Amino acid sequence: MQLGLIGLGKMGGNMRERVRRAGHEVVGYDRSPDLQDVDSLESLVGALTAPRVVWVMVPAGDPTRETVEALGNLLESGDVVVDGGNSKFTDDQVHADLLATKGIGYVDAGVSGGVWGLENGYALMVGGSKEDVAKVQPIFDALKPPVDAESDSPAGQGAGFVHAGPVGAGHFAKMVHNGIEYGMMQAYGEGYELLTAVDLVEDVPGVIASWTQGTVIRSWLLDLLVRALQEDPGLDDITGWASDSGEGRWTVEQAIEHAVPMPAISASLFARFASRQEDSPTMKAVAALRNQFGGHAVQAAKAREVEDPA
Amino acid sequence: MQLGLIGLGKMGGNMRERVRRAGHEVVGYDRSPDLQDVDSLESLVGALTAPRVVWVMVPAGDPTRETVEALGNLLESGDVVVDGGNSKFTDDQVHADLLATKGIGYVDAGVSGGVWGLENGYALMVGGSKEDVAKVQPIFDALKPPVDAESDSPAGQGAGFVHAGPVGAGHFAKMVHNGIEYGMMQAYGEGYELLTAVDLVEDVPGVIASWTQGTVIRSWLLDLLVRALQEDPGLDDITGWASDSGEGRWTVEQAIEHAVPMPAISASLFARFASRQEDSPTMKAVAALRNQFGGHAVQAAKAREVEDPA
Amino acid sequence: MQLGLIGLGKMGGNMRERVRRAGHEVVGYDRSPDLQDVDSLESLVGALTAPRVVWVMVPAGDPTRETVEALGNLLESGDVVVDGGNSKFTDDQVHADLLATKGIGYVDAGVSGGVWGLENGYALMVGGSKEDVAKVQPIFDALKPPVDAESDSPAGQGAGFVHAGPVGAGHFAKMVHNGIEYGMMQAYGEGYELLTAVDLVEDVPGVIASWTQGTVIRSWLLDLLVRALQEDPGLDDITGWASDSGEGRWTVEQAIEHAVPMPAISASLFARFASRQEDSPTMKAVAALRNQFGGHAVQAAKAREVEDPA
Amino acid sequence: MQLGLIGLGKMGGNMRERVRRAGHEVVGYDRSPDLQDVDSLESLVGALTAPRVVWVMVPAGDPTRETVEALGNLLESGDVVVDGGNSKFTDDQVHADLLATKGIGYVDAGVSGGVWGLENGYALMVGGSKEDVAKVQPIFDALKPPVDAESDSPAGQGAGFVHAGPVGAGHFAKMVHNGIEYGMMQAYGEGYELLTAVDLVEDVPGVIASWTQGTVIRSWLLDLLVRALQEDPGLDDITGWASDSGEGRWTVEQAIEHAVPMPAISASLFARFASRQEDSPTMKAVAALRNQFGGHAVQAAKAREVEDPA
Repeated sequence: MQLGLIGLGKMGGNMRERVRRAGHEVVGYDRSPDLQDVDSLESLVGALTAPRVVWVMVPAGDPTRETVEALGNLLESGDVVVDGGNSKFTDDQVHADLLATKGIGYVDAGVSGGVWGLENGYALMVGGSKEDVAKVQPIFDALKPPVDAESDSPAGQGAGFVHAGPVGAGHFAKMVHNGIEYGMMQAYGEGYELLTAVDLVEDVPGVIASWTQGTVIRSWLLDLLVRALQEDPGLDDITGWASDSGEGRWTVEQAIEHAVPMPAISASLFARFASRQEDSPTMKAVAALRNQFGGHAVQAAKAREVEDPA
Repeated sequence: MQLGLIGLGKMGGNMRERVRRAGHEVVGYDRSPDLQDVDSLESLVGALTAPRVVWVMVPAGDPTRETVEALGNLLESGDVVVDGGNSKFTDDQVHADLLATKGIGYVDAGVSGGVWGLENGYALMVGGSKEDVAKVQPIFDALKPPVDAESDSPAGQGAGFVHAGPVGAGHFAKMVHNGIEYGMMQAYGEGYELLTAVDLVEDVPGVIASWTQGTVIRSWLLDLLVRALQEDPGLDDITGWASDSGEGRWTVEQAIEHAVPMPAISASLFARFASRQEDSPTMKAVAALRNQFGGHAVQAAKAREVEDPA
Repeated sequence: MQLGLIGLGKMGGNMRERVRRAGHEVVGYDRSPDLQDVDSLESLVGALTAPRVVWVMVPAGDPTRETVEALGNLLESGDVVVDGGNSKFTDDQVHADLLATKGIGYVDAGVSGGVWGLENGYALMVGGSKEDVAKVQPIFDALKPPVDAESDSPAGQGAGFVHAGPVGAGHFAKMVHNGIEYGMMQAYGEGYELLTAVDLVEDVPGVIASWTQGTVIRSWLLDLLVRALQEDPGLDDITGWASDSGEGRWTVEQAIEHAVPMPAISASLFARFASRQEDSPTMKAVAALRNQFGGHAVQAAKAREVEDPA
Repeated sequence: MQLGLIGLGKMGGNMRERVRRAGHEVVGYDRSPDLQDVDSLESLVGALTAPRVVWVMVPAGDPTRETVEALGNLLESGDVVVDGGNSKFTDDQVHADLLATKGIGYVDAGVSGGVWGLENGYALMVGGSKEDVAKVQPIFDALKPPVDAESDSPAGQGAGFVHAGPVGAGHFAKMVHNGIEYGMMQAYGEGYELLTAVDLVEDVPGVIASWTQGTVIRSWLLDLLVRALQEDPGLDDITGWASDSGEGRWTVEQAIEHAVPMPAISASLFARFASRQEDSPTMKAVAALRNQFGGHAVQAAKAREVEDPA
């Protein structure tokens, strides 16, 4: 089938390639002339035969919203727009409502896989009506990881793709996926740090590598940690500075909204915030208080205090 | 080679079987006559030709200590004792010192794999001297997971086994493994709960299953969660009560000892503690305080308060 | 001066009394005929001489919004509306904009003090323009705690009242106040629980009481905990169930919005969520996972597991 | 009465002064000739008439242990040693047993008050036998804060002093006190940071000062925060680096030992650990993982990443 694909960056470019390898025709648009198959949204829409499927793979927020609005003016009834970016799930219903006024369908697709997706396939969490999802299904099938018939995965054919619910459910599921990702990465990180903190363990990269088979904690992320330590055994060339991309925040916000206790994932999010601070106002206040009641002179530098009398 | 194996429960029994399948001779002792090959430690030692390797697979604490002490009186110089149980790493040096007075070697082996180890192999984290570890190596090779030559695992031959350092390093590594396990399970649990808290996601087991391929968070634990949800889609037959076996506590204690921030793993540990409380004294105090400043009558039952004026 | 006061519940009723004791005239309206001075908003507005000050003390959300909208239709240019309820700070600008179209001023006032405010005075955190705040100042002065000239409080005349910034700043400051309150209550609660968990400490209420003078942790909340323990030394008549009123949630949401690490206050919020759960889906998932890898039968009841083999 | 006092530093020196002001005779010993009344423990013991009370006020650990051992050789049956330092409660029974062999009594006294204690009095949490405590009581009465007859404190005469239980109970209570202190300081710090993170609140020191009267969160620590902000309104001259003195760690260790959930206090402890790290190995691992799955180049500096594709 035909697919219109908007946004051909690191993710979109690889997805175009994977869909093409599956035998589909992809017409890609990107602002960058070097990446684009066509030079405008109009040309993209014109190159597709109705009913069209147009996949939007641009940054969440304004870029996605503007693209959806533009498509609303270009597409026609019966076409379907897929938002495969990292949009907040609350944006989805807005986009769906906007397109619905023109009879255009809408599907939100949370996509996981990173740079590995081209080879391994992309996991897809999808929200929308049965009809709209069905129109995109051949593309989903091309993108998703192949299910090995001999695999002992308990998920069977359900691995790598789910129609999670109505519009928004796909991005919600992807958001939670990323929240879990924060927690897992933090857990591995904390364990790694403790190993490095003691002299007793002489081969920390070896311990991490040993965990990749037979253990309860084996995972793809653990494989990646092994890779990272093979490249840089002491992680000396990297700073402990971690960005966050929105989904972790939204996960905790939703937990708060629904009164779900989320101590570990929120701790992981806060650790990222802290990793980006030059200095911590919270800890300035704590240090100031200790100075007040302990009678220490206010400290201008990170000198170790000797005694805490209170 | 020959192996003496003490403790033939769920773990030890399967390990005996796996070692035998690899062609080694195992003489097993257990207090239970139904499980034992020989009926006493004396018989076990007598059935082995020196230099002997005797693997202890009994509960940590007193049972392991008593067994090590008994072996110290039965074995001879050049023999090696392996503690494969979940001992605290600080016990290892004590045991090693005790045996060293008789010239008996000591190796601590953290073992992961649970009931799946018989088929998949057991991951082994080992501490001890080069010489002592070498004496046990054929048994380690029999127990550890086979490394698939075609596997794309980055760990290669390092997967499933590590000689982590001197005596104690094996149990330390296993302890950290379990700490990470706590964090990962909590992260999956929190994500699962958030999915179940919203109407938007209509197929929670389907979402979990979809994550098992192509995603960043795929793991063996996730496969197990899929299995659990296949057996009981709403987890209706299980209560949210989670035990802890010591290693999680020791991990956090060691983090404190070494000033390692460990917010996510500790949160996971505390969530387990809370899961086992009928009522929380902390929250009684919080509720009492709210009543004091808000002027609410003290509540005898879990009735929802309407308003919080302060 | 004259004050119109809408909402004469536990907080509003006491505030009317305190303002009257200071010599001001208060015209109060409440939906309940038993509490009201006048029987409608129209009568209230009619009873006041312009420029009027009308204080809204009703539940946050719809009731406050509806009241502000109604006042927008009744008041005239130069009047000022004060929202003294627990509104979210983001509501304030909406209300201010709505009233500004009529030339009516708006001040948001976070009020702390609970049932003790009548005697002790109410702490006030205020947002709005200098002009609007000035119009209400005599009422603020009546409500706020008297500043003891001989007090050694370092805040001096700044204790109990602050004009924190423009519209919204008052409720923002009150929101943060409540977030801190969550953290303090949790800290006291955790300490209390640890004291009760050991046999060594024979007089837990005595320890708590001893802390009320001379210690670093003495506070008004601690005084309240002493009172609670005097009434019920084991807190036997109260369940560990704690509501939350919105401000704690908003505080953590704002922390996330501004990338502020907030581990302790968020932990306190999550502890409240957990206190209200009959069973925890997170811990169900954790228990299910332990059963899967440990080979335990799924448990239907809260029986203690003996051993954790993985 | 007479008191022997060993250790005349910031705490001990002030305590000597306060006890003397109450009319007692104090013989002080310190290693520093500038501070000492007598020049050896022998002289100190010789200057006191039996039955003697000797108060040890030296750093916890080896210095306290060595002093207790020395006193065990100098004192005689019927004398009492008080350990007023920040010893771990588990040391107390060891010290008591050692002295009991000579018939010497032992009392542990947790002391709070810092540099303010000289004027305000010291809060005392005491463990030991009734008889031993009674022998020291006049000194406790001299040190403790005076109870204002007109105070409305609910603790009444119980404020500032408690006989918490047998040997060890005093230091245990003091340890918990300090754990709570960590949680309170962290809560104030987090709230302070959030206030500073928004433009909306224009007068952060003013907000903090306003909280010192009438609010739910007023406390002595809050007064100290006001002082700190008066001296340095932006806390610009202080770094966010906070030491910890042992008691916070022991509190969390005890929580783990007794399966007490302690999320807020532990978060506060971990925040202090993190405040002292130049870089975080945990966050290095997290950053390395993000780079691995996101395909980002490994970063050598704290440059902000633009996009997170997974």
